[in-house]
Amino acid sequence: MDSAQDAAEGYRPWSEVTPDAARRLLVAAVDAFAERGYHATTTRDIAGRAGMSPAALYIHYKTKEELLHRISRIGHDKALDILTTAADGPGCAAERLDAAVRSFVRWHAAHHTTARVVQYELDALAPEHRSEIVALRRQSDAAVRRILTEGVASGEFDVPDVAGTTLAVLSLCIDVARWFSAAGRRTPDEVGALYADLVLRMVGARPRPQK
Amino acid sequence: MDSAQDAAEGYRPWSEVTPDAARRLLVAAVDAFAERGYHATTTRDIAGRAGMSPAALYIHYKTKEELLHRISRIGHDKALDILTTAADGPGCAAERLDAAVRSFVRWHAAHHTTARVVQYELDALAPEHRSEIVALRRQSDAAVRRILTEGVASGEFDVPDVAGTTLAVLSLCIDVARWFSAAGRRTPDEVGALYADLVLRMVGARPRPQK
Repeated sequence: MDSAQDAAEGYRPWSEVTPDAARRLLVAAVDAFAERGYHATTTRDIAGRAGMSPAALYIHYKTKEELLHRISRIGHDKALDILTTAADGPGCAAERLDAAVRSFVRWHAAHHTTARVVQYELDALAPEHRSEIVALRRQSDAAVRRILTEGVASGEFDVPDVAGTTLAVLSLCIDVARWFSAAGRRTPDEVGALYADLVLRMVGARPRPQK
Repeated sequence: MDSAQDAAEGYRPWSEVTPDAARRLLVAAVDAFAERGYHATTTRDIAGRAGMSPAALYIHYKTKEELLHRISRIGHDKALDILTTAADGPGCAAERLDAAVRSFVRWHAAHHTTARVVQYELDALAPEHRSEIVALRRQSDAAVRRILTEGVASGEFDVPDVAGTTLAVLSLCIDVARWFSAAGRRTPDEVGALYADLVLRMVGARPRPQK
């Protein structure tokens, strides 16, 4: 599922991680953290899953937290890229919100294992890494809030509480990672289309008033 | 926060768990699982948090999984009670959906630590316990789906995909447990009111047609 979706989108997960051994360790860490939780996973577990020795792991990552930080950083960079691309894209506010929700949901569905680690293990990050990630999350939030604010200004949207609605829209998309199953009835694309419609209803989208 | 909210609602969490030592162990287990994850928590950790010996724990719970099952069962019973009370309550479909969302959100906000354990550790349950919990989740889903179906039949709601919208409504409410902080700007009541409005928009609620 993940690889088919990625191929369709021209996206190779973790392709930014080199060399290959470092990438394999990161993929193994995602699987281990998702399965047992960060605190129950040892660097020995991760090395074993990657078919490597603990000593080989330490060449690439000094600590388990460094692995989590790398995973979290890549996931949050991707989320921010998805949302700012949509916010800066062409079209009216409704079209940009539709695009943001579709691609953000698709990512959380297709990469639900990674997304769970990225979303649920924030408290395990070292304080300086947590601050860095929180800053990225604020930027993601700001991208969605900007689309909503512009839609209200243009008369396309009716949103009494822009900050609260932004929070709800992101929350709805993020929780896809919790419940989505590749064995389920809906594809990532289908969930994206359903959620884009639901979010446009949440913001009271209507055709832009004629000038 | 939890206790003030509980007092306001006349709800004493874990009051169904007796004797007192068994209740204290359950509360300690919730805190430990939420903080470190189920797999990283030992029964020794739990006993220590409750100020008891591991031997005293075994008088009440044979295994760590028995504690998780008890927590999950109580949480899911409460969720089902909230949703069926709203579905069976007085009023039109919009009023019942409003009540369901408000109380379900309030519970996930006020009891966010418990709710995280209940929602995120399903895979750690023994197969027979997992089946039992999945059956309760299906009943919760059915209670919300029933309100939506009745609203569509009465002409109050416009919902092209009842199953998908039911899933989204529950998902939106459940994810409150992930992001809610007692130190944040919104109270559980305020989040409940905001979300009830957003969900009524999602279902295209409009005044019931005059007969």
